[in-house]
Amino acid sequence: MNESEFVAALRKLPLHKGARGLEDDCAILAIGSETLVITHDMMAEDTHFRPHADMADVAWKLLASNLSDLAAKGAEPIGVLLGYSLGSDDARFLEGLAEGLRTYGVPLMGGDTVATTGTSTYGLTAIGRATHVPVPSRKGAAPGDGIFVSGPVGRAMLGYEGDPDHLSAFNRPLPRLAEGIALAPHVSAMMDISDGLLLDCWRMAWASGVTFALESAAVPVASRARMQECLRWGDDYELLFTLPEGIAPPIAATRIGTVRSREHAPLMLDDMPLPDPANLGYRHG
Amino acid sequence: MNESEFVAALRKLPLHKGARGLEDDCAILAIGSETLVITHDMMAEDTHFRPHADMADVAWKLLASNLSDLAAKGAEPIGVLLGYSLGSDDARFLEGLAEGLRTYGVPLMGGDTVATTGTSTYGLTAIGRATHVPVPSRKGAAPGDGIFVSGPVGRAMLGYEGDPDHLSAFNRPLPRLAEGIALAPHVSAMMDISDGLLLDCWRMAWASGVTFALESAAVPVASRARMQECLRWGDDYELLFTLPEGIAPPIAATRIGTVRSREHAPLMLDDMPLPDPANLGYRHG
Repeated sequence: MNESEFVAALRKLPLHKGARGLEDDCAILAIGSETLVITHDMMAEDTHFRPHADMADVAWKLLASNLSDLAAKGAEPIGVLLGYSLGSDDARFLEGLAEGLRTYGVPLMGGDTVATTGTSTYGLTAIGRATHVPVPSRKGAAPGDGIFVSGPVGRAMLGYEGDPDHLSAFNRPLPRLAEGIALAPHVSAMMDISDGLLLDCWRMAWASGVTFALESAAVPVASRARMQECLRWGDDYELLFTLPEGIAPPIAATRIGTVRSREHAPLMLDDMPLPDPANLGYRHG
Repeated sequence: MNESEFVAALRKLPLHKGARGLEDDCAILAIGSETLVITHDMMAEDTHFRPHADMADVAWKLLASNLSDLAAKGAEPIGVLLGYSLGSDDARFLEGLAEGLRTYGVPLMGGDTVATTGTSTYGLTAIGRATHVPVPSRKGAAPGDGIFVSGPVGRAMLGYEGDPDHLSAFNRPLPRLAEGIALAPHVSAMMDISDGLLLDCWRMAWASGVTFALESAAVPVASRARMQECLRWGDDYELLFTLPEGIAPPIAATRIGTVRSREHAPLMLDDMPLPDPANLGYRHG
């Protein structure tokens, strides 16, 4: 099976209502008077990082990608559990993890380690406390809303290619936790851009039953000359969100388009319909 | 690094107080008026299961081993998140997972899937609600307490070897959820026996600062002729617990010894001191 087929099969299993049909990046768990936000993301050698990657960067990114999912829910992190395959420069992994945990003030809660014989796989479960309910989802974008991004896209692409000005964007991405908390009470929909701006816009528009009309000239990109690639590359972990017309974002952000009623395609780029999510960004598996 | 060294290094990271110093199987998270119990266990091909294992059994066991950690805390499961490596008979894995979730009435909350190129690794995060606080730990065994097990040990060993009467004990272990909930208000210490009775007794005695004096003849074993092996083999997922003298267990259970003040060794078997945890059970990594 590929990832899409597997997830489709998972949807037929008994699901928690907080799983949101497995169509969101986090589970939402109302418990007593609080609401928790829980996510589990993995990274695998060859797929998510190169065999000779600095394991400190891998650890940082594993933490950052999970915290970014919490950021998109306006959640403040409570702690993380680590699932670790021993063997690939464990000491460097620990250094990067320690740096990340200290930078974000997030404690380790537990986890498990295993010895493996093949390529390494790492998992992290992040648990956060929702600062605003209802917790933002991908589903609430409504016609007339403005579409915003919290920062430029394409920096991770340039960093991946070795551009010294953008190495940290690829190796040490910064989850937008403070921004997500500031935005949560105001947004109609929010997600982090992990798989590419166009693909994630397509997904948010699809989930919301609307069409996103984007103006490419308005999108902040790391390289104007390579705009089409910047729009499709992932790993930047900026926030994508929609706000009702007339509401200004409470953080530095750029408006990149407008939500319309559903048209033929969920996504329009400079009035060109993009009905098919293929080739819009990074798709796993 | 081996697993012990890695966990020792993890203990130097910023830890959540609910991590209990990474010396317990679960994290405890007080949130509002509720207390959550959270665990993450992994299984890896070659280490935890054979390359040609039925993936339905692997999925069941992954779920069962995590639910068994909740059982030892007297927690009732809320849901699980799955970390899955695509590729090894995914359909059978899904069947086993579905059977397990339905058997225990536990819903899926989320997770992640990755494509990998090597041996497969699976992780599961289980979240439960504590039914009794303080949540039982390994630490509370006190001199004079009785030591009990909830059922025989060694069944998984016989099942692993192919004994048809015990195959299900190895392939489809049953976490003692109802028993754990019944026990939680009464026990002074509790854990599940995942790595072998003697090793887990040693660990509980060590954590509690006492000595466990066991009588081998009292221990329920799957094969009396192979008692020494039964005492050391893991994967049975029975509950090990201590009760203050005079308190009868509220479930069917067998008394196997008595807690004493710490002597030279944390563990005595038929008056033979066993100071060293090496060779007492299954040690990973």
